[in-house]
Amino acid sequence: MEHYQILDYIKENKQRFLDELFGLIRIPSISSLAKHKPDMYKASEYWKKTILEAGADKAEIYETKGNPIVYGEKIIDKNLPTVLVYGHTDVMPVDPLELWKTPPFEPQIIDEIIYARGADDDKGQAFMHAKAFEFMMKTDNLPCNIKFMIEGEEEIGSPNLGKFCEENKEMLKADIILVSDTGMIAQDIPSITTGLRGLSFMEVEVTGPNRDLHSGLFGGAVANPANVLCKMIASLTNENNEITIPNFYDDVQIISKEERKEMSKAPFNVEDYKKALDLNDVSGEKGYSTNERTGIRPSLDVNGIWSGYIGEGAKTVLPSVAKAKISMRLVPFQDNEKISKLFEAHFKNIAPKNCKVKVEALHGGQAYVSPTDMIAYKAAEKAYTEAFDKKPIPVRSGGSIPIVAAFEEILGIKSILMGFGLESDAIHSPNENYPLFNFYKGIETISLFYKHYTKLMKKDC
Amino acid sequence: MEHYQILDYIKENKQRFLDELFGLIRIPSISSLAKHKPDMYKASEYWKKTILEAGADKAEIYETKGNPIVYGEKIIDKNLPTVLVYGHTDVMPVDPLELWKTPPFEPQIIDEIIYARGADDDKGQAFMHAKAFEFMMKTDNLPCNIKFMIEGEEEIGSPNLGKFCEENKEMLKADIILVSDTGMIAQDIPSITTGLRGLSFMEVEVTGPNRDLHSGLFGGAVANPANVLCKMIASLTNENNEITIPNFYDDVQIISKEERKEMSKAPFNVEDYKKALDLNDVSGEKGYSTNERTGIRPSLDVNGIWSGYIGEGAKTVLPSVAKAKISMRLVPFQDNEKISKLFEAHFKNIAPKNCKVKVEALHGGQAYVSPTDMIAYKAAEKAYTEAFDKKPIPVRSGGSIPIVAAFEEILGIKSILMGFGLESDAIHSPNENYPLFNFYKGIETISLFYKHYTKLMKKDC
Repeated sequence: MEHYQILDYIKENKQRFLDELFGLIRIPSISSLAKHKPDMYKASEYWKKTILEAGADKAEIYETKGNPIVYGEKIIDKNLPTVLVYGHTDVMPVDPLELWKTPPFEPQIIDEIIYARGADDDKGQAFMHAKAFEFMMKTDNLPCNIKFMIEGEEEIGSPNLGKFCEENKEMLKADIILVSDTGMIAQDIPSITTGLRGLSFMEVEVTGPNRDLHSGLFGGAVANPANVLCKMIASLTNENNEITIPNFYDDVQIISKEERKEMSKAPFNVEDYKKALDLNDVSGEKGYSTNERTGIRPSLDVNGIWSGYIGEGAKTVLPSVAKAKISMRLVPFQDNEKISKLFEAHFKNIAPKNCKVKVEALHGGQAYVSPTDMIAYKAAEKAYTEAFDKKPIPVRSGGSIPIVAAFEEILGIKSILMGFGLESDAIHSPNENYPLFNFYKGIETISLFYKHYTKLMKKDC
Repeated sequence: MEHYQILDYIKENKQRFLDELFGLIRIPSISSLAKHKPDMYKASEYWKKTILEAGADKAEIYETKGNPIVYGEKIIDKNLPTVLVYGHTDVMPVDPLELWKTPPFEPQIIDEIIYARGADDDKGQAFMHAKAFEFMMKTDNLPCNIKFMIEGEEEIGSPNLGKFCEENKEMLKADIILVSDTGMIAQDIPSITTGLRGLSFMEVEVTGPNRDLHSGLFGGAVANPANVLCKMIASLTNENNEITIPNFYDDVQIISKEERKEMSKAPFNVEDYKKALDLNDVSGEKGYSTNERTGIRPSLDVNGIWSGYIGEGAKTVLPSVAKAKISMRLVPFQDNEKISKLFEAHFKNIAPKNCKVKVEALHGGQAYVSPTDMIAYKAAEKAYTEAFDKKPIPVRSGGSIPIVAAFEEILGIKSILMGFGLESDAIHSPNENYPLFNFYKGIETISLFYKHYTKLMKKDC
């Protein structure tokens, strides 16, 4: 595999790659909304076709209790290494819809950037793997075996993928799992994600009176569940922005001063960060830098809260119910199920007697660490260096891909996280986008990874 | 006017009264939603027709900057006393719609109770006055002059009624304003409202980052406006449920021990109250009883709060904006504009540097006291005693009718609050209702009021 071959192939097929990606993006495969169930099947069919056309020996759609999973493979030699590509075809909801400048499921290119829900996460990023595979097949450059596993429930916590892995251990056997569902520092600063946070996502409900009341006739004499919920949420963090749930930090790994010093070398400009988000100031746990706050420390965020009258104008109602979605990002060694239980117990414990409280764990996943001394990391490093002409920086991401930790647990396979997203891609937000540069550069870098990985694996034997 | 004449007239016209009321209720005149503007005109036309058919000399619809006002009158002798009836034809929004057992604008009678938005507040209650007037006209029993002023913006704070009063002082000249927009203790315990709380209704907005962010990539490093709003709201009341806004209590009237003792004689069963609302416990300012908490003490309630993802399932978003509607009920001598300003200054003062905060006063009104020694009170007392065979109890209501204080200020006329609603009427809530008993008893009591009022006024001369 010569570098120019990849560049030529991309040049020749530039527009077709995009057209094909756009076909996938146009399917509104929002996994959290039941009405989009048929779209999950459409997106899976699209993936099956894509993999087969790229040159797979076979590709199948596997049913689960939830959304289907696409599995495909190209086995060239059982003695060669095997790479298992993981991606997801489901996307986040699109509200608030009024903030989108272009319709979320009608991809458009503006100033060399694709705008659409899923443009980055994870349709754009996963599709790079299909096209890298196609390049290697069509130019006779595939150096090892390749397997694809594309699921449809990542954005809702992959509730059925673990079971699928359990039941298909033999089929999924591989030396490394390759995932592009993370970001890099900047277009000219390549980076490889070496850590992911875990997640506990909770929904809470506080009920006061059995119906909405007139706030004049009852205000002051009946506990208002919205006020109560605010007090409860407020008490979950203290003045240093530490989480107050008892035993919450018990299993948090203490990072050494040396390691923190090493991490602080990653290029980061807090003024640019503030400017990009239009913030007067950053915020977070006392004693930690911005990158540490998302990289090595857990966090607690309200993802949604709602109660009472939220329409236009005034309505003097004392609401019956107040609800919130609250998630915690976890770091290595914090067990998400244990944390969800600690949260539930604490939240019920702080509930005042005059309200009823319900707590539900919606989903979760473990944190993950990808060691920089494994072969796949070294191969990725070489691939980035060749593609970007710059050595990539190892970084810990604040995001979560819960299934990555589960892969290690169930399949015993490590993952390498070659993400090409940018912070400005607005994933999960209105106007999600993905620069064409990153899309094509990703195809290039991924292709180079296979070459270096196979070489290093052979040397290792 | 003989008591049996009223009873006979009601008996003969029972069904027609209801049919006519239902015609009014069917108009979805929600003043806080702009799309219902045409319904405000329909409701005004309906009132004009109703007053004219009842026997008014004239009735007109007056335009304002907002919704129209209906004015009608029957002047029989300029030397006789004049009663000005005030009511409103606008209603509250109906959400959450899914909690209604019957469609809100299709009135239905179930177990002798009318179910519909506006059945009590204030279509049902105001309509009693039209029918009492009709009775007096058709049976030649009207003992004094009568004027009607029915507005369409009470539920949004009567923003244009003050100006209308200013501009029509001569036309609105009267000896007393008669209002049925409050409640009574129980069907067998008549009461007259002698006090109303004032209101400051605020909307607040907290903005963090300039767009919704991924809670993994940013969580812990960027202030979450939903968490911040919870902390800010939580801090507005202390552990004794006292409001913490500086100077908030400065003008609150201290009620003497003797007066509190007198008030405590009103029948009230806290166990029944808790049971009716399905509460484990009542709640509120330390050192005060439930009735005192709504009657003589101010309160602060979240009427609505919303931020982030509030749909089905999980979305790991760190929201850009969080909003809340917060209202304070005020007691006599607390100036609502002063309180709104204190709130705004305090809320901005407690805002953390890392968020932007907006505060808007949506509407408000002053508290009001209706003295028990005025002629109208004594006449009302006699009317209730004759109709219910029981002396009514004077009570302070927690609700607000901001315009009542404005009437006194602008027109120099006191109001008498003859309300026939029950706590179980669920005004402002789903399944608002009004018992037929109260509707007919109201027509009866109101008619008797005119007799006693005119007699006492003549005696007074």
